[in-house]
Amino acid sequence: MKLYTYFRSSAAYRVRIALNLKAIDHELVPVNLLKSEQQGEHYLSKNPQGLLPALETEEGVLGQSLAILEYLDETYPQHPLIYGNAWEKAQIRNLSYAVACDIHPIDNLRVLKYLSTELAVDDEAKNKWYRHWVEVGFEKLELLLDEKHDFCVGDKPSLADVCLVPQVFNALRFNVDMTAYPKIAAIYAHCNTLAAFSDAAPQNQLDAG
Amino acid sequence: MKLYTYFRSSAAYRVRIALNLKAIDHELVPVNLLKSEQQGEHYLSKNPQGLLPALETEEGVLGQSLAILEYLDETYPQHPLIYGNAWEKAQIRNLSYAVACDIHPIDNLRVLKYLSTELAVDDEAKNKWYRHWVEVGFEKLELLLDEKHDFCVGDKPSLADVCLVPQVFNALRFNVDMTAYPKIAAIYAHCNTLAAFSDAAPQNQLDAG
Repeated sequence: MKLYTYFRSSAAYRVRIALNLKAIDHELVPVNLLKSEQQGEHYLSKNPQGLLPALETEEGVLGQSLAILEYLDETYPQHPLIYGNAWEKAQIRNLSYAVACDIHPIDNLRVLKYLSTELAVDDEAKNKWYRHWVEVGFEKLELLLDEKHDFCVGDKPSLADVCLVPQVFNALRFNVDMTAYPKIAAIYAHCNTLAAFSDAAPQNQLDAG
Repeated sequence: MKLYTYFRSSAAYRVRIALNLKAIDHELVPVNLLKSEQQGEHYLSKNPQGLLPALETEEGVLGQSLAILEYLDETYPQHPLIYGNAWEKAQIRNLSYAVACDIHPIDNLRVLKYLSTELAVDDEAKNKWYRHWVEVGFEKLELLLDEKHDFCVGDKPSLADVCLVPQVFNALRFNVDMTAYPKIAAIYAHCNTLAAFSDAAPQNQLDAG
């Protein structure tokens, strides 16, 4: 199993965490987003969506990190990421999508690039944009989280933590003040005490710049 | 079961389609996004995320349309939206997220509002922004679709169609030229021959302006 990855891609970071949590044997294949390698012929022949990450399996190549995570969770049931009854699973997905749909896509590198190149937005306003969507999203998420737990839900990592940790990592890069979100900050700190999370972090990747 | 909805909200539109396909008895409760009713006390007491849609069930209120759709699919197995083996399910989710994560969030009303109010982007550039993300997304999606089918996958509607149809509806509002995406256009036309889809369309809602 091969994961096409870029050290700073949040979506690839999610899948790296899941592969580690489930202890699935895999190879990481770096694709440099800053050099637009994801738009190159070789990568497009693997994943016509031209986005990272993509998982190459015996059955074919799968794009979309959330689809990959659901697929891994179904085919490698050890350490389930989405667990409990239907309502509990819905809570995990709700928290996950509050990050993966409501924050991440708007702050993606290609969107930030469009702001700079097409709309001539300066760096200060671009960074404010980044922080705005994180802050609006984290404010809502903080309300949904339960104070009692080390993880987003219950006492073991779920899909929600897999989505949240990369988002916090990037928020810190953009100087979001995490003291405003004590529950999220505590979950981030706790997750990073686990090797599955810290080994997946951007600075610990072979392609880290 | 109550669905908090706004006629033009793509995410609410998805859930309306699913409720129809599964023939689940439900009540639609309109929340006017243009009047910011989703930020009002009454709605926030139901859904602290302050976004549409939300589904009120006997177990509580659930936000995030994709979480709602997965929950409905698990609890109301008639007319499954995500079906087949793990790999086939992954393909359905991949196509769904290519719309729900890669296009929709960037073109959401709150993002367009931010462009106008915070970045003083004029209407022409804002409409171009809208079309850009649809066009980039549809171009990739078109490559992933199989010419042979009436629906995104196989011969019955899936989560992918539930996500795609509202996105095409909105793309048409923004004058995206759909002739560039013949497979998507054909799926859209075919889905709309089904009452479950056409009854859920914005113009057929009681709160349609």
